[in-house]
Amino acid sequence: MIFVDACFGKETPHTPIWMMRQAGRYLSEYMAVREKAGNFLNLCHAPEMAAEVTLQPIDILGVDAAILFSDILVVPNEMGMELQFLKGEGPKFPKPLETVEDLENLDMEASKKLTYVYETIELVRKDLAPEKALIGFAGSPWTLATYMIEGGGTKTYSKVKKVIYSNPKYMETLLEKLTVVLIEYLEKQILAGVNAVQIFDSWAAALEKDAFFKFSWKYMVQIAETLKAKYPHIPVILFPKGVGAYLDGIYGNFDVFGVDWGTPIELAKEKLGDKYVLQGNLEPTRLYSKEAISEGVSHIMETMQGKRHIFNLGHGMLPDLDRNNAKFLVESVQNYK
Amino acid sequence: MIFVDACFGKETPHTPIWMMRQAGRYLSEYMAVREKAGNFLNLCHAPEMAAEVTLQPIDILGVDAAILFSDILVVPNEMGMELQFLKGEGPKFPKPLETVEDLENLDMEASKKLTYVYETIELVRKDLAPEKALIGFAGSPWTLATYMIEGGGTKTYSKVKKVIYSNPKYMETLLEKLTVVLIEYLEKQILAGVNAVQIFDSWAAALEKDAFFKFSWKYMVQIAETLKAKYPHIPVILFPKGVGAYLDGIYGNFDVFGVDWGTPIELAKEKLGDKYVLQGNLEPTRLYSKEAISEGVSHIMETMQGKRHIFNLGHGMLPDLDRNNAKFLVESVQNYK
Repeated sequence: MIFVDACFGKETPHTPIWMMRQAGRYLSEYMAVREKAGNFLNLCHAPEMAAEVTLQPIDILGVDAAILFSDILVVPNEMGMELQFLKGEGPKFPKPLETVEDLENLDMEASKKLTYVYETIELVRKDLAPEKALIGFAGSPWTLATYMIEGGGTKTYSKVKKVIYSNPKYMETLLEKLTVVLIEYLEKQILAGVNAVQIFDSWAAALEKDAFFKFSWKYMVQIAETLKAKYPHIPVILFPKGVGAYLDGIYGNFDVFGVDWGTPIELAKEKLGDKYVLQGNLEPTRLYSKEAISEGVSHIMETMQGKRHIFNLGHGMLPDLDRNNAKFLVESVQNYK
Repeated sequence: MIFVDACFGKETPHTPIWMMRQAGRYLSEYMAVREKAGNFLNLCHAPEMAAEVTLQPIDILGVDAAILFSDILVVPNEMGMELQFLKGEGPKFPKPLETVEDLENLDMEASKKLTYVYETIELVRKDLAPEKALIGFAGSPWTLATYMIEGGGTKTYSKVKKVIYSNPKYMETLLEKLTVVLIEYLEKQILAGVNAVQIFDSWAAALEKDAFFKFSWKYMVQIAETLKAKYPHIPVILFPKGVGAYLDGIYGNFDVFGVDWGTPIELAKEKLGDKYVLQGNLEPTRLYSKEAISEGVSHIMETMQGKRHIFNLGHGMLPDLDRNNAKFLVESVQNYK
């Protein structure tokens, strides 16, 4: 698999490409399946339909890897926290974590209940061409913990910051619990057939540098290193979003570092390019214009020439973009000379 | 004035401190005046009341500088764009810029209509102790342009990015117009009595590195250098939020660089500390806890020891914080040994 080879820094016939949120609302085929499912969470719970939307971008765009269709919040959900996706709003936990009892009540056997995810993986892997990789994923402990304490999205991170400053032990206990569950969850994804795993730390930039390494990166590395020790043939990709100013502190045994678009690719190359394969980092709104795509592709490909690289966006795809532009991007990268 | 001296890198008896959004909702005295005004925009328009809330943090917290109470969006408002502040929502321009005609209709004489701002400055300067500085301010051309095109806050910056990629000339014309108006506006603030000016580029991080320098920084520097040529005794502070990964590109003739909390102060010191006075960068939620304040203050003060520095937060104050903690911060910095 070209994608897996690239994750390990091997020579490949072309730079592989996939796109975060490539199975999504910009595809009418996706919207049709989602309609049938009734809502987003139902779709995550229905292996046949989840498998179908996972495969769509492979057929439609020709990307080199599929990423499991699911959501990072199914994990806290199966740990016992009610989860709502309301129309036009972000995800919500109506009863966020507050007390020590709330922590104690979290179901540490959650990975056993996420069977619909493993079934989705098996279905996808059966139908996916053997040269295409399937990427499994999870949210980082910090990002999940933030959702679980804030009860949803936040601009100020007030609640979670209060916990960090007034009761860091509470936060550490929660992060440790999540780390245990996430290792089991990703391990079960691997056993079900994924060829690589990515950990998304979407809210990394909510933390100051020292706090990022203490409350987030440490646990991501712990998950990565546990998996690498047991499954060395499975590449591990870490994607902390928005930490371009913290790159000199990045450490650990993992394979691929995901670069967000706010981090200049030159800077990532200088700081991390000798140690890790880099994945990224086209600015997503460039997909609105073919010219902007070509300019961005040239810039990234020229910078990474001769270095180990997987092409991706620097954040997820937007719902209102033109699939023809996405296709144009994939072809531009795969045919780049 | 200790604050102005520090802006020019002179030795001062203590490190001066002020806080972004120091006149704000966390003060009951502020809320009382705002109630009287009826709403936020009325308060901006009423010099007596705006002067009163500008002065409150000086009396209550003992900070070394007052910052004019106003809003960056009064400028596009006086350029002819209707502005709404709806309860519980961010600011909105119900008729965002779309056509070339919209651009042509912008009132280039707006600075002459912002008399309520200059009156506020005169009133404040009359009542402010002579050793305390008054800081004037404006939004950056890029940040204002983004509001004017998006029509309000945005997570994806879709509209403004489409303009950049499909019609960069439109954006440049808008940015040039704003630059002209903002120079006149800040000049009139200086003539009314402010002792320093700060330009807030709140949405700097919406841009990739190259785009940031092309569409934002260039115009900020243009404003700064025009003012410095005419008013060399007035310090100019530039605050582009979220560009910690772009610091090696910062250039221009201005006095103080504002460091946001996502940029490690060590990094800012290394990259810019020899060229500019640095202002910042305590993480605002540290104000929830005295311990977190002390830890943050020690870290920043130790790092900046012997370097030119003005203490501030790395972003605005939050509405739900305890004023006693804010006071504790001010004293910690002013008495730091």
